[in-house]
Amino acid sequence: MTVTSTLKDRIENTELLAKVVPVEEAVKHVVHGNTVAISGFTKSGEPKTFLPALAWHFSQTAPDARITLLSGASLSEDVEGPMAPFIAKRGPYMSSPASRRRIHAGEMDFTDVHLSAFARNLMYGFYGDIDVAVVEVSRIRKNGSVVLTSSVGISAEALARAKKIVLEVNTSGPDYTGFHDIVLPAVHPHVGWPLPLVNVRDRIGNPYVELDLSKVVAVVESRTPDHPVPFKAADDTAKRIAEHVIDFLMRCREQYQWGKRLPPIQSGVGNVANAIISQLYDSPFQKIRFWTEVFQDGMLRYVEDDAKFEYASATAVSFSSEGRQRFLDMFERSKDRLVLRPMWLSNSPEIISRLFVIAMNTPIEVDIYGHVNSTHIDGSRIVNGLGGSGDFFRNAYLSIVHTPSTRKLRDGRTVSCVMPYVRHIDHTEHDIKCVVTEQGYALNMDIRSPKRRAQDIIDRCAHPYFRPLLHAYLDMAGPGDEPRATDMKVLQGWWADYDAATRAFPQNG
Amino acid sequence: MTVTSTLKDRIENTELLAKVVPVEEAVKHVVHGNTVAISGFTKSGEPKTFLPALAWHFSQTAPDARITLLSGASLSEDVEGPMAPFIAKRGPYMSSPASRRRIHAGEMDFTDVHLSAFARNLMYGFYGDIDVAVVEVSRIRKNGSVVLTSSVGISAEALARAKKIVLEVNTSGPDYTGFHDIVLPAVHPHVGWPLPLVNVRDRIGNPYVELDLSKVVAVVESRTPDHPVPFKAADDTAKRIAEHVIDFLMRCREQYQWGKRLPPIQSGVGNVANAIISQLYDSPFQKIRFWTEVFQDGMLRYVEDDAKFEYASATAVSFSSEGRQRFLDMFERSKDRLVLRPMWLSNSPEIISRLFVIAMNTPIEVDIYGHVNSTHIDGSRIVNGLGGSGDFFRNAYLSIVHTPSTRKLRDGRTVSCVMPYVRHIDHTEHDIKCVVTEQGYALNMDIRSPKRRAQDIIDRCAHPYFRPLLHAYLDMAGPGDEPRATDMKVLQGWWADYDAATRAFPQNG
Repeated sequence: MTVTSTLKDRIENTELLAKVVPVEEAVKHVVHGNTVAISGFTKSGEPKTFLPALAWHFSQTAPDARITLLSGASLSEDVEGPMAPFIAKRGPYMSSPASRRRIHAGEMDFTDVHLSAFARNLMYGFYGDIDVAVVEVSRIRKNGSVVLTSSVGISAEALARAKKIVLEVNTSGPDYTGFHDIVLPAVHPHVGWPLPLVNVRDRIGNPYVELDLSKVVAVVESRTPDHPVPFKAADDTAKRIAEHVIDFLMRCREQYQWGKRLPPIQSGVGNVANAIISQLYDSPFQKIRFWTEVFQDGMLRYVEDDAKFEYASATAVSFSSEGRQRFLDMFERSKDRLVLRPMWLSNSPEIISRLFVIAMNTPIEVDIYGHVNSTHIDGSRIVNGLGGSGDFFRNAYLSIVHTPSTRKLRDGRTVSCVMPYVRHIDHTEHDIKCVVTEQGYALNMDIRSPKRRAQDIIDRCAHPYFRPLLHAYLDMAGPGDEPRATDMKVLQGWWADYDAATRAFPQNG
Repeated sequence: MTVTSTLKDRIENTELLAKVVPVEEAVKHVVHGNTVAISGFTKSGEPKTFLPALAWHFSQTAPDARITLLSGASLSEDVEGPMAPFIAKRGPYMSSPASRRRIHAGEMDFTDVHLSAFARNLMYGFYGDIDVAVVEVSRIRKNGSVVLTSSVGISAEALARAKKIVLEVNTSGPDYTGFHDIVLPAVHPHVGWPLPLVNVRDRIGNPYVELDLSKVVAVVESRTPDHPVPFKAADDTAKRIAEHVIDFLMRCREQYQWGKRLPPIQSGVGNVANAIISQLYDSPFQKIRFWTEVFQDGMLRYVEDDAKFEYASATAVSFSSEGRQRFLDMFERSKDRLVLRPMWLSNSPEIISRLFVIAMNTPIEVDIYGHVNSTHIDGSRIVNGLGGSGDFFRNAYLSIVHTPSTRKLRDGRTVSCVMPYVRHIDHTEHDIKCVVTEQGYALNMDIRSPKRRAQDIIDRCAHPYFRPLLHAYLDMAGPGDEPRATDMKVLQGWWADYDAATRAFPQNG
């Protein structure tokens, strides 16, 4: 095959250069029943050329083909959408409407696993053999080892465990050499070792991934840049939530004698997270560090300010179109201030605990005791998955769950995001130290009964409109340190009252 | 005060020898409103003389006094029972009927925290100042540092953080010098360090606890040995559960190529745990290691067998009367095969994950998706607390929750321990890899929808008598990947049917 000079520049290994094929050829290495592990995390670094081509190939030649697809985290809909009909099993995270529909309908098996555990389970062999790894790379080095692109996710594990490897060399993006810190987790019966990482900026692995060249069955070129992820600007509610978060951090700073040193921050995605990152920039904290999953638009201004910012560690960068351009404009500067690691490491309990990370994530809803539903609407239908929220909440120095106190549904109802109980629990009361809404924040850090905590969460975090209903639940729930209503008739009445209230929520509320 | 020669032998430091006082004097250092942190874990190493004397002192002089009492884990009822009326706040674990009554009645605030997190939170200052530490010791060394007794728990943290220290020198027990491995957790803004521990037998700290002598306000003698903990023999159900656990381990051994090397075992307390430890002894596994919370009766035979056993690490020993005698008979031998560590270390996510620990614990009940209730009957009333179950389940290489499929209540009903949903969740589906009952075991290790997993848990683990009811729930729960019934009227019907079934459970079932 004729190889473009752009591509040739990115492939320094002659053996692998000889394996360049059109993507239409490469996709034939994946057949019905295969388990395919791919690069990609929050729509970054996914095999953007291979997967749509594979979907087309199946649709033309094997419409009944079904595979198991394992990724780091979410893929863009341009990539996952066409593949969805051919995915029988999927893990550990997705945000694809096409996959979601099939998962809810029972046509696709989805397993929701802590991201750090997923990568290790994959290495342990719990998900069986990996037939094919498809990994986007920036560059193939002289000895055949590869430099990844805008995410790491499970790429290193996929390359280590797969029987066949397809490399997708992305020539549209920059060469990410120098951004990565790659280490594989130990596997029993090998001895596990302490991770020699004590600062966010420490690097403990290689900037490339080594692989067995004989396993590479195809190399393809991709000229598609990462699909942009729209930046969600903060609304008033998000801004008020962010103010409460900063208040809480300032209070902790005093109480626990942090001095100027804010512990490293993990922050999720969405408009509340963006508001927090924005207000944190204007806070008195200096030399801020991020130990997080995804480096996003809101963090770019930090890179420009050496007084405000020290270092960031993530498993992916994920930008809007504008953010991406800004990132490319200061690509070299970023390389000295940002490191991308495998997700088992970015989400490692060992490191999150050691670095005293402050974790912040948005749930679907919380309950009055501090239990958190991050994944399932009405308990039954998954949205995206829990991702790394459990890795961070559980092991954080401080764990903050932040949500608007209410959410307006498409059917016109306005529901409370603080409920008497939630129908799916991903994070228990034992893992949450602070609940924040635009109304205020309530703590779970003291020696205090769950019942007292509940009164506090209702009075400080719930929307005033819903507070009487929540107190009514607590009153009828009976005795105990953590009262839970069990009389089904009474409960039925409560839900009827609640449902009526969601319909009568004042429009200016 | 006249000091017995037995006591004098145990106190090598003259400054502290001069601080020996009758316990009736020592208790005066604790006053209303104090936070008191004590030694003690599963009824071992608690201040058995001080606490009952303090209770007597309060009852005579300050009946309205209330304190906050923090321990490692459970105390014996002889110790906690008399104190219960004077405890306003309690954490992080208890098994005292007297405390439990007050907690359920809202008279005592109890906070249920992962044991590893509790010890760190205490060091971080989240529970405020520690006014008095009361710690049982074997011996006071020449420089005033102390050797603990049969448990470590939070003793080192208590001694490090307390403003005043009372040492209770137990002269009834042996001198435990050489059993302990003491390290304190790092506290922000100090830098956290990797724990240099890669084998169960590695010791990374000191065999004693250093302390500030000027803080010691009293030294008292105790002649009371640890109160015995009755050994629960395995019944037929427990034996069948244990058989399934061993089956599962043998299957994993094949599938994941362990060879002869069984990963270290964490095992909870109770008759099922005892049955497992017993059958494990008769399994083909050799050189078994325990990385667990409590070293118990069932593990004693291992110490006698160097082919079967390599090493055990725990935070406490806890024995029946017979077990204790047997332990004392091979005290020196045990010292080379058993190490006791602070509970933040015995339960450290970093170490549990690194050592590939296999975790096994008994819950109150599980649900069809694998969520686990470990703490609250009917969701409302705490039993003991979650202890270290979350530390181990979450970070384990394999996490096994084992329970009889049914439980007979005092009121004559027989309830299912596999439920459609549980009213309190301590461990989520994301943290459980294997559910075991006497009926069989079901896995949560593969890429599989929660709904399929539920069908498996019902068919393999639930009691056959309750299976139709559980399937009926799943059928009526509607669509979704993890269906949860939300129609309160229908749910009310299900619970009525279930309640009737619990009353009609066949007596020979």
